[in-house]
Amino acid sequence: MSADAGALLRTLGYAFRDPALLDSALTHRSAGGVNNERLEYLGDAVLGLVIAEDLYRRYPQASEGELSRLRASLVRKQTLAELARDLQLGEYLRLGSGELKSGGYRRDSILADALEAIFGAVYLDGGFAASAGLIQTLYAERLQNLPTEPLAIKDPKTQLQEYLQSRHLHLPEYAVVSVRGDAHDQIFEVECHIVALTQTTRAQGSSRRRAEQQAAQQMLEQLGV
Amino acid sequence: MSADAGALLRTLGYAFRDPALLDSALTHRSAGGVNNERLEYLGDAVLGLVIAEDLYRRYPQASEGELSRLRASLVRKQTLAELARDLQLGEYLRLGSGELKSGGYRRDSILADALEAIFGAVYLDGGFAASAGLIQTLYAERLQNLPTEPLAIKDPKTQLQEYLQSRHLHLPEYAVVSVRGDAHDQIFEVECHIVALTQTTRAQGSSRRRAEQQAAQQMLEQLGV
Repeated sequence: MSADAGALLRTLGYAFRDPALLDSALTHRSAGGVNNERLEYLGDAVLGLVIAEDLYRRYPQASEGELSRLRASLVRKQTLAELARDLQLGEYLRLGSGELKSGGYRRDSILADALEAIFGAVYLDGGFAASAGLIQTLYAERLQNLPTEPLAIKDPKTQLQEYLQSRHLHLPEYAVVSVRGDAHDQIFEVECHIVALTQTTRAQGSSRRRAEQQAAQQMLEQLGV
Repeated sequence: MSADAGALLRTLGYAFRDPALLDSALTHRSAGGVNNERLEYLGDAVLGLVIAEDLYRRYPQASEGELSRLRASLVRKQTLAELARDLQLGEYLRLGSGELKSGGYRRDSILADALEAIFGAVYLDGGFAASAGLIQTLYAERLQNLPTEPLAIKDPKTQLQEYLQSRHLHLPEYAVVSVRGDAHDQIFEVECHIVALTQTTRAQGSSRRRAEQQAAQQMLEQLGV
């Protein structure tokens, strides 16, 4: 059973006009009925904009690529799940019996989705400013602790290289698998291969460099780095 | 040289308090100086939220997956480029001489990026409501012409199957390449292969089904469908 949402509301510092929205946001699809998937879809977009704007203003000199990388690090499931745990959100979730037994309330993806759904619910209930305020409050510490220069967040190829070097492994091999499209609108597909780990990823991009970065990013995720 | 932005402003029905923002939004990176890449990053997030909310309200019964597919069809580069052409946006762009000679003002990606940058500029200049109003005006016809049931937008696997059948080709083969992670938090990597076309794509997802849909989507893009 889920705990009373009253305590959660006090933690969030937001009072719902329509408490049914909060109920939906806390209901995993395994519980049946109206669940939080549609609100999560909306909340994901709200979060994306609020963080995008904060970073845009915080780093007037940062490039689009740097801002995108910073944002990705803040809105990923793992970060959301950490924030959800700080709120003890798991105690308020409504889950089906299968998920309850398997400890679903502790799972990153379920916690992250519920928090995004709450952002969507607050957006519908109180408008953009209310949801932006909540997100900024929850993210305050993480935003303040960001590197002074976004360049300190290394690009995926550099991260992957340093990870492999720290393990005394050979550097990854990148190879262009295919190039499609007109001369001015090409799509490159690139493979990233790590011989020692027999791991391969593939990714596409509008330049060889972008495709390589993307393939390196996928490799970092595949390796759980 | 770019045309006077006054006519564009009248078309958009929005008056900038800070006209320098509009100038930046219309400046491609090839022109040097302050360009539209940061504004595009912001505008992409604004557009994502505005379309997400419109679809959320328009389709109260649609699933998160259906809403996401509809949204993807509305915010992709091709749709944005069509809207930009309706506005004759190409005439207002500032491009470097290389891009000018090669007809950069006609390119989908450059047009789409500039329109997203305008959304970002209006957001900064006039706030969320102003940018939402502009986006809803520009998208009005496309939003009204959406299918009554979002299910009419077929999922990528179905689209790919129908495309191949219409060309009397064998159906694609899907194969799980790897499964990683804990029992309750797995990542599936799936390969989609079309023998007759010697084309292969790979994608990841939190279920085999999602990874297959993603691989099919990449195949559709690779085939230019």
